[in-house]
Amino acid sequence: MTDRRKTPDHAAQHDLILGPDPEDRWLTRPVEGIDHTGKRIETRVVTERALTLYLNSQEIVTLMTIGDHPEYLALGYLKNQNMLLPDDEIAEVEYDEEVNVVVVRTARETDYEEKLKKKVRTSGCAVGTVFGDVMEHFEKATLPDDAVLRTSWLYALTHRINRLPSLYLTAGAIHGTVLCETDRPLIFMEDVGRHNAVDKITGYMLRHDIPAAGKILYTTGRLTSEMVIKTVLMNIPILISRSGFTAWGVELARLAGLTLIGRARGKRFMALSGEERIIFDDEAHEDAPGAV
Amino acid sequence: MTDRRKTPDHAAQHDLILGPDPEDRWLTRPVEGIDHTGKRIETRVVTERALTLYLNSQEIVTLMTIGDHPEYLALGYLKNQNMLLPDDEIAEVEYDEEVNVVVVRTARETDYEEKLKKKVRTSGCAVGTVFGDVMEHFEKATLPDDAVLRTSWLYALTHRINRLPSLYLTAGAIHGTVLCETDRPLIFMEDVGRHNAVDKITGYMLRHDIPAAGKILYTTGRLTSEMVIKTVLMNIPILISRSGFTAWGVELARLAGLTLIGRARGKRFMALSGEERIIFDDEAHEDAPGAV
Repeated sequence: MTDRRKTPDHAAQHDLILGPDPEDRWLTRPVEGIDHTGKRIETRVVTERALTLYLNSQEIVTLMTIGDHPEYLALGYLKNQNMLLPDDEIAEVEYDEEVNVVVVRTARETDYEEKLKKKVRTSGCAVGTVFGDVMEHFEKATLPDDAVLRTSWLYALTHRINRLPSLYLTAGAIHGTVLCETDRPLIFMEDVGRHNAVDKITGYMLRHDIPAAGKILYTTGRLTSEMVIKTVLMNIPILISRSGFTAWGVELARLAGLTLIGRARGKRFMALSGEERIIFDDEAHEDAPGAV
Repeated sequence: MTDRRKTPDHAAQHDLILGPDPEDRWLTRPVEGIDHTGKRIETRVVTERALTLYLNSQEIVTLMTIGDHPEYLALGYLKNQNMLLPDDEIAEVEYDEEVNVVVVRTARETDYEEKLKKKVRTSGCAVGTVFGDVMEHFEKATLPDDAVLRTSWLYALTHRINRLPSLYLTAGAIHGTVLCETDRPLIFMEDVGRHNAVDKITGYMLRHDIPAAGKILYTTGRLTSEMVIKTVLMNIPILISRSGFTAWGVELARLAGLTLIGRARGKRFMALSGEERIIFDDEAHEDAPGAV
């Protein structure tokens, strides 16, 4: 698999394994307009590209994406849709930039025609879909009990993530997801589709055998049922967002025992599920129940 | 058609025809959790309900929605998907609260089986779809040339909309769309799905014969291709958002001659299409090109 860019220097500069590259001219486009004073201005807007995914000879879906890391997106999408099973050996991931197609080839072929018919709608932008057996796997998932989230990590993470270079800061109108460990952001993906950003992280973890143990997921988007399902299927026990909750997101997080933290801004947050994993070690909260 | 609530008093209080009712206990649900100090708290989260739409005897789609105004949502969805044509006479709109089904019956029956196969993906949450012939209609649409947007209206609108009672202020994690005229918000709809909020406005306009002339649309969400397409098909020439732009949103807006205003906060904004409709009449910008 060739990636458009190898681990870029700017990611290393910010102590990230992989992060957004706001300087990549392929991801944003200059557009002319006017500002509130009527002055001619040029601004940058994020690009959107259709990317068609094939699993072996089967066309699976066409996604709208900003276009970075198509191979990770393809792998992560297939994995999170449960179309790649743990014992599936990935023979090849081929990206054709000319026609915007990614083909994932596995050692063992499977026919997904039937599976594609069993769509179930989920929440979020209210047009998301998951396949029937994703929910079966969700129900069987067990998240590690020993994982913890220190409030000092949480505050350091949100502080650091907000200051990382991003397409969001450059162009806006984009969602971000960050794979973290303790107080450190590791992999930061952005996309016009919130689910794509998560899928790209899943794809990276799959391709580079990154273990889920000890990981924390951060998203800029709302805590919807689909975000919760993906996090649980990735076997990550803690999901943080600066946005709010939906009822189904909370309900599914409680079913799975996921620690669900929303409205995380500055030194404030709200936990609506799995709060027993939180350790209040920040000096601001010495009198809190889990204080150390 | 019976609506769950008639024009509520709170809407009239805020000079709206129809607006969100944060007091409606059906739309949010109390959830217990903890805050950043570890204290037990109760907060409210928005509900999500599956709503299945039928057009005559044909099942069309299942949407995830907060659940208010199911009849307007059904009508607006069908209209914006071009499944209801201008000459279609709506015989009945029936909502069954027990099974969460809305059936729209037209005088003339049509078979939409074939149409349902012709899905085209659009931007936004990257899983949106429109039907093939929606784009044909989009290409033929002509927006009125004589519409204007005064900056004084724009600033008054964003100021007023931000202060209207909303589920966003109560529970967060929700999108809003507002139909406006000059400096006045008229109809304010919210939903977990951004597109649902627009569709509910379309449905209201269709049901109550509200003309598009002189109207302005405001959305809290990003200015994606799907938002632009819906606004153009509604024949509304001005779309405003406090969020940012995507490349396809800008491109389609320019094709259709739609005035596209993003990042509208306070007395700042950016216009990337159709800026000739803007009149700079706010005292802050007396030296601007279109100043009056």
